[in-house]
Amino acid sequence: MPDLSVASAVEALKKLEATSAAYDHVLGVLSLDASTAAPKGSYPGRSLTTGVMSGLHYQLISDERNGQLYEYLSAHADELDEQTRREVEVGKKNYDKMHRIPMEEYVAFRTLLSEAQAVWEKAKLENDFAAFAPYLEKIVDYNRKFAGYYNPHMAPYDALLNEYEEGMNTATLDAFFAQLRETIVPLLAKIQSAPQPDDSFLRVLCPVEGQRLLSGQIMEVMGLDRNYCGIAETEHPFTTNFNNHDVRITTHYYPEAVASSLFSVIHEGGHAIYELGCDDRYNGTFLYGGVSMGIHESQSRFFENIVGRSREFVENVIFPRVKAIFPAQFASVSPLDFYRAINRVQPSLIRTEADELTYCLHIMVRYEIEKQLIDGSLAVADVPGKWNALYREYLGVDVPDDAHGCLQDVHWAGGSIGYFPSYALGSAYGPQFLHEMEKDLGDIAPDLRAGDLTRIKGWLRENIHRHASFYKPGQLFERVCGKFDARYYTDYLTKKYTALYLE
Amino acid sequence: MPDLSVASAVEALKKLEATSAAYDHVLGVLSLDASTAAPKGSYPGRSLTTGVMSGLHYQLISDERNGQLYEYLSAHADELDEQTRREVEVGKKNYDKMHRIPMEEYVAFRTLLSEAQAVWEKAKLENDFAAFAPYLEKIVDYNRKFAGYYNPHMAPYDALLNEYEEGMNTATLDAFFAQLRETIVPLLAKIQSAPQPDDSFLRVLCPVEGQRLLSGQIMEVMGLDRNYCGIAETEHPFTTNFNNHDVRITTHYYPEAVASSLFSVIHEGGHAIYELGCDDRYNGTFLYGGVSMGIHESQSRFFENIVGRSREFVENVIFPRVKAIFPAQFASVSPLDFYRAINRVQPSLIRTEADELTYCLHIMVRYEIEKQLIDGSLAVADVPGKWNALYREYLGVDVPDDAHGCLQDVHWAGGSIGYFPSYALGSAYGPQFLHEMEKDLGDIAPDLRAGDLTRIKGWLRENIHRHASFYKPGQLFERVCGKFDARYYTDYLTKKYTALYLE
Repeated sequence: MPDLSVASAVEALKKLEATSAAYDHVLGVLSLDASTAAPKGSYPGRSLTTGVMSGLHYQLISDERNGQLYEYLSAHADELDEQTRREVEVGKKNYDKMHRIPMEEYVAFRTLLSEAQAVWEKAKLENDFAAFAPYLEKIVDYNRKFAGYYNPHMAPYDALLNEYEEGMNTATLDAFFAQLRETIVPLLAKIQSAPQPDDSFLRVLCPVEGQRLLSGQIMEVMGLDRNYCGIAETEHPFTTNFNNHDVRITTHYYPEAVASSLFSVIHEGGHAIYELGCDDRYNGTFLYGGVSMGIHESQSRFFENIVGRSREFVENVIFPRVKAIFPAQFASVSPLDFYRAINRVQPSLIRTEADELTYCLHIMVRYEIEKQLIDGSLAVADVPGKWNALYREYLGVDVPDDAHGCLQDVHWAGGSIGYFPSYALGSAYGPQFLHEMEKDLGDIAPDLRAGDLTRIKGWLRENIHRHASFYKPGQLFERVCGKFDARYYTDYLTKKYTALYLE
Repeated sequence: MPDLSVASAVEALKKLEATSAAYDHVLGVLSLDASTAAPKGSYPGRSLTTGVMSGLHYQLISDERNGQLYEYLSAHADELDEQTRREVEVGKKNYDKMHRIPMEEYVAFRTLLSEAQAVWEKAKLENDFAAFAPYLEKIVDYNRKFAGYYNPHMAPYDALLNEYEEGMNTATLDAFFAQLRETIVPLLAKIQSAPQPDDSFLRVLCPVEGQRLLSGQIMEVMGLDRNYCGIAETEHPFTTNFNNHDVRITTHYYPEAVASSLFSVIHEGGHAIYELGCDDRYNGTFLYGGVSMGIHESQSRFFENIVGRSREFVENVIFPRVKAIFPAQFASVSPLDFYRAINRVQPSLIRTEADELTYCLHIMVRYEIEKQLIDGSLAVADVPGKWNALYREYLGVDVPDDAHGCLQDVHWAGGSIGYFPSYALGSAYGPQFLHEMEKDLGDIAPDLRAGDLTRIKGWLRENIHRHASFYKPGQLFERVCGKFDARYYTDYLTKKYTALYLE
């Protein structure tokens, strides 16, 4: 590219990034529409459009000329500002990856996913794993194949893990999960022989209208500006974002499980706070948005658990609001009763409803199955059996059917294998962030008690959110915390649940 | 293109059409999201994406190579099936048009509209025409300029009319509107000196939850399959469609105006029936979807008025459902009271709330203003004054403020000038379609009384809907009805309102 100047190359890069961001936006809106508003039978037409748009996006990113552009810009890296330098690095990585994926495979995979989503929804509703199995088989095959394109030098599952948490691998996770089990399993045994709090009042009827009101109030406490953050209703709650001024959270209301949507909203709200806190400068560039699934989950689970399930916040912020909206339902419940019920430990079937202590055991089940699906030692047909056996082994529960078993999560239908470990990592990052936060801010308990999250959000924004994807996840974490150490997490769990059950 | 075979040229055409349809789909979803779900402050990011996507769509359609493709295919027209031949014709027309519009202008216009929508919403809410005026000025300028690109041989306003109703022009409309006025104005005068029915019960509180239920029931009567037709809530009701298996209607609920949403749903439901009735073969081609705004409005207004406001349907289908949902509100109302109230003639301020008789007078106001804006004889700053004067002249009402005057409609903010006359044309096509329908089916009164729209929908589908955009609007109309004659409409109005008021 002898006729290129640095200025014109940078201009070409920025245009490429803006175009790519527009494709992300429309693919995101199609998917949001599918989950929140689209009539059930509309998916074939949307699949076609998703296929066309994904193909065009693929062509854009993998265009040969981009290879030359990145080469030229890399050669002139010292003439670029540091943001552009990092944009080149991220763009080049995506280019190399996409360039290795044949377009037909890429488009076929996107189109498959668009169908798989609808098939999974129906299969879950009808408890029909056999209907979903052929799709899961194809999704596993694609993932195995794509792993080789993502990183031909890594073991396939490691390559997939790196899509969600750059730098992560099976060796690290095996050790991490072993460490968690060493703490959780004996702690859980002790808890299970201790007296259990009553949580029956969490299952009384709380009409959806009131729950919607509660969502609004909690979003207000969290400082989620409704001008830039919408809320919609879906089967499976998630957060999606189009830029740092357009974030959508979703929730699902169960009339007889008021805590379910409540903590979904706080969890998704944590994701939204991260996205809304990214610096404007990254909008429309490759550095836009949260940097990894692990860091993202660290934020959502920070708000859900460290903030949302803390004694201070539950007793002083959540409970008064719940009681004001549903006075009859909670007339004879004290703040402490409510706190204990919210944190009741109960090995159970559904990950998204799990308590904070047993949550990671749910992740381990999925981690083991994913590893074996990808290395070929487990056939898709054997997933339900394996799932049920692991739930028995890790959580001591019997899975009654696949709707409450291996069909419960959307992730595999969405094409994501290697994503689940991020939830456990995110859970573990949180307490280490808290440790650093309290070094700077002192005890945050008064903030939680007052329902004033300003300082907490400010610290997270300053140290994490505003950087969007400028730093790699490991790099970002180490800038803030130094070396990752799961003991912050295990100590946090031990302290919290000892106080709740064993003192 | 000497190396082209007819087969490969047709393949290239079909791919172009599928890609274009995908852009239409995503631009439509962006716009639907904007009106139904997006947080208010999110429009700048959406404007950027709309700009990028419109630019790519423009490039796709106006690509020089398409010109060669159409030339080649036109030269081999006798080797094409009749559908492909028509696709070539429509594609070529769009190509010629788009090709004349400079890309920067096209993208700037789309981006402007994305902003203008948000500005208009706020201006209407705050009754602040001055805030919207700069946008309207630009929109008028663009329309005037684009008219020359659309058709350099026509007067600008005629060229704009042709975008919505191919073959229409000012001369025809002037005569048409004059003919309407000759009937409506004296009839209205007689009605206004006759006794007026009580319609106060239409303004009692009917909670929105019940109104939502009513929408669902009416959609069921209309045979709108919820599997393929969604309903959402917006400020200004509209229908949008992505293919013949994915149509969305919208409505707006006013707690103290139950008839407002009710007839919106029937009106938009009529649009939806048209789109859902298009043959599958046209999906993803240039012939997809209803052929013109006039024909579209003929369908929506057929259902809204000829079906929905008929005595048979109101008394036997609508009223029992309204009364079942709101028993206390309508305890002392008879079916005939309700029918008369629904059809009460009352010159008023708001087009979408207008009765069937005075409706076209609202259109004439807009028609006059549009003509003058485009020929330059009216400045944007003078629109409110002109609007108010015409409302006084045509409808005899005083406009209290611009929110209830020239800011009431979304169309100009959406970039559409020349669209409004379609409403009047559609209203006039309907009774002529009815005349032909009853030649084939006999009296449809029993169908209306039974709430069984099967035969009516079947006839419309057979004669109109299934053809999508295969025939030009005038051609389609003439195939069904022969020559257009507004007397079917004026006779229909005279008969209906004489029976209601003067017998």
